[in-house]
Amino acid sequence: MNNFTFTLDPASRVPLYQQLYAAVVGEIRAGRLRGGERLPSKRSLCRHLGVSRSTVETAYGILCDEGYISSRERSGYFACELFRTPPAPEPPPLPRRSAEPACRIDFSTGDVDTSAFPYASWARLTKEVVYSSPQLLQRGDRQGDEPFRRELCAFLREWRGVSCMPEQIVIGAGVEYLTDLLLQLLPEDAAIALEDPGYTAARRLFELSRRAFVPVRLDAEGMDVQALEDSGAAVAYLTPAHQFPMGMTMPVGRRTRLLKWASEREGRYIVEDDYDGEFRYFSRTIPAMQGLDPGGRVIYIGTFSRSLAPSIRVAYMVLPPPLLDAYLRGFAHSSSTVSRLEQETLRRFIAAGLYGRHLRRMNNLYRRKQALLTEALLRLEGASVSGADAGLHLLLRLEGADAVRVAERAAEQGVRTYPLASYAVRAAVPQDTLVLGFAGLTAETIAEGCRVLAQALAAERANKK
Amino acid sequence: MNNFTFTLDPASRVPLYQQLYAAVVGEIRAGRLRGGERLPSKRSLCRHLGVSRSTVETAYGILCDEGYISSRERSGYFACELFRTPPAPEPPPLPRRSAEPACRIDFSTGDVDTSAFPYASWARLTKEVVYSSPQLLQRGDRQGDEPFRRELCAFLREWRGVSCMPEQIVIGAGVEYLTDLLLQLLPEDAAIALEDPGYTAARRLFELSRRAFVPVRLDAEGMDVQALEDSGAAVAYLTPAHQFPMGMTMPVGRRTRLLKWASEREGRYIVEDDYDGEFRYFSRTIPAMQGLDPGGRVIYIGTFSRSLAPSIRVAYMVLPPPLLDAYLRGFAHSSSTVSRLEQETLRRFIAAGLYGRHLRRMNNLYRRKQALLTEALLRLEGASVSGADAGLHLLLRLEGADAVRVAERAAEQGVRTYPLASYAVRAAVPQDTLVLGFAGLTAETIAEGCRVLAQALAAERANKK
Repeated sequence: MNNFTFTLDPASRVPLYQQLYAAVVGEIRAGRLRGGERLPSKRSLCRHLGVSRSTVETAYGILCDEGYISSRERSGYFACELFRTPPAPEPPPLPRRSAEPACRIDFSTGDVDTSAFPYASWARLTKEVVYSSPQLLQRGDRQGDEPFRRELCAFLREWRGVSCMPEQIVIGAGVEYLTDLLLQLLPEDAAIALEDPGYTAARRLFELSRRAFVPVRLDAEGMDVQALEDSGAAVAYLTPAHQFPMGMTMPVGRRTRLLKWASEREGRYIVEDDYDGEFRYFSRTIPAMQGLDPGGRVIYIGTFSRSLAPSIRVAYMVLPPPLLDAYLRGFAHSSSTVSRLEQETLRRFIAAGLYGRHLRRMNNLYRRKQALLTEALLRLEGASVSGADAGLHLLLRLEGADAVRVAERAAEQGVRTYPLASYAVRAAVPQDTLVLGFAGLTAETIAEGCRVLAQALAAERANKK
Repeated sequence: MNNFTFTLDPASRVPLYQQLYAAVVGEIRAGRLRGGERLPSKRSLCRHLGVSRSTVETAYGILCDEGYISSRERSGYFACELFRTPPAPEPPPLPRRSAEPACRIDFSTGDVDTSAFPYASWARLTKEVVYSSPQLLQRGDRQGDEPFRRELCAFLREWRGVSCMPEQIVIGAGVEYLTDLLLQLLPEDAAIALEDPGYTAARRLFELSRRAFVPVRLDAEGMDVQALEDSGAAVAYLTPAHQFPMGMTMPVGRRTRLLKWASEREGRYIVEDDYDGEFRYFSRTIPAMQGLDPGGRVIYIGTFSRSLAPSIRVAYMVLPPPLLDAYLRGFAHSSSTVSRLEQETLRRFIAAGLYGRHLRRMNNLYRRKQALLTEALLRLEGASVSGADAGLHLLLRLEGADAVRVAERAAEQGVRTYPLASYAVRAAVPQDTLVLGFAGLTAETIAEGCRVLAQALAAERANKK
């Protein structure tokens, strides 16, 4: 039986045809059966291996189908030629992910309290939606489903003062995804001004996309308009509701001045990242800048990930007409990145008033946490707090202390805090200030975190003397 | 009462403080109250408008908070300066979306049959998952949750012969999203070879990303290796399971030859888009090319959107170690684009064996549709069918007929078909061939569609004589 040396095992749980298939593949791959060489006829192989004709036929059929062998009429089956790739000299090791050091308490600005997540209504809506319409399983609108955009449009008008049509909204899987999409709509040579200090994730995104960006300094009201003008940037990326990390809310005067800047030259835009726009503690929320803009120069971006749950990846972007036009021309055939079932769940959640109720509840919850934290922090020696009118983080100034050293000392005790300086690119920022997020903490972890901070501060002050 | 001319309406449903707020904003925005001008004192305004002190206090509080007015100690409240932006000369019209012409029956290659969607198990799992763990609401792993990747890894090994570790898998919201991500991991100057004729959506993606790409011709087995070599491309984008649109399955000999091409120079890669890899009708599915690759040169990409439902936006990509390294370095801080609740639902769906069962059912369903369609098509004059061993589309050759004209005639009757020529960039392809998808059609629409095609063909043949 020419070069076939294998045997099959009738006792194995692997079907005989599959054993035969694997054996022939092995012979060919190992080069014992070369390209062009003839295989035994089905009949002789049956006899040789003591298997049924159908076993051989099935195996030969698969081998033909995959191209390991081919049949020539009246002359039988022949092995096809395979090309050998030398295996990598050493199997390249899988790169390791760098693990973050463990900590007990994290004053992270990215965390969210999900303890008040509306489990019951979400589970109910989610289930209802699966059965609601077979159409929902088919491909949806690339911009997001129209009924969802309509509902969201009404919500944004009422809650955030955003003035737009549902046609201007694009739904996408997260703020990063939408920002990346936006970059593809803006002229390639448009440099982008980022707040300095500012949102590190946005900066990273611009770096990754290889877009030119310029850090522009802030004053007490937000981005410095003269510095913006001087930077030559065509687009300004702003967080007016609660500047990250400085925590101020941009007053309407500065907003209108920046809108004027945008209107003064063709192709200028403002990206309004409505970061923390839903959360404001001592008065009602401040309407978005987008609603003040008569000229169509603002791109408004928001998300459900911070207001509802970080694991829900739904964000939205409102495009002014010229960019909408670029989107429709460039992305006419792309697919949405958000499941339609999830879009419909969210639509019903908003329409039933459940989202509004959830936001009110979260505002109360965060206001209480913020008050607890502020109270505890103000007991620290030389401490003052700012940026606490809104949002999920605040600034703690420790008069004269080295914030990096305090943070290091606290980290040794398992408490992570964030020196303000780490968010600055070129800007000079106070070196005695920490940025503290509180959304993910409880009354207990806030108390314990502040206790550790107090120790760290005391040790640092003692060391300095 | 200096320049305040408005009155409030106590009968309105809008609270008085809000009417007052809006009125002052209106005065300032209209320029009737200028920056630096003093507002009436709270007391005099109470008297003038006949409202309570708390109404005025609330309104002034909000105005201060938003920055419309500011208070100076012992001298009262002053309007802040707003900047006026000239409104766009004409409100720019919203660009219209180009509507696709209506059709009764669409032989689209992108459609999917969702009639056999596992509603009951999906609804049950979806609901269970909401309650399963509060942790699922928090931010997840950027690559996709580890338990889901582990389950998917085992599934891909068993069903598609993919050989990888869970650490190599990246989950993302659709094949387009992942391909776009992949482009950011490949060297910027690496030109990409695309099959010609090929997948239009992939080409569009490369155009949008401004990456250099080269169309490379096919022969009967798939991408022509010599033409690929000559193209100077470093990366080849392939659909080996069921080439789109030609419909052939790449035999193992060609697969190994392309793998050898990739191994011959540093930085060469093959992107294996496992398009239609789950669907094969006359033998078992053919294992992925990735599993044949000893050198770590294949990026494997697949999706649940075609096997489960287009509206479910979950796809996966298997990265070889050097690209995984680039991913971990560049995207260490990015967020996942897929809801964790959906990931966990899919994980349970696969783990319970429901996905495998669903795929078997869909294979049977599509095999029947394909047989129906083939049978009907072969009754057409001069017709032959190819590319029908696998996947959700096939090629119909109408010997000597002008496929574009036939498609036009059919479209007049509301039946949309796709001339093969429309998928070619530079390649010479038969002008008498149509690409027909059948997944979204029923027995009735297949029959009716073929009837219209027969008429269109007859009219075209008659016209030609």
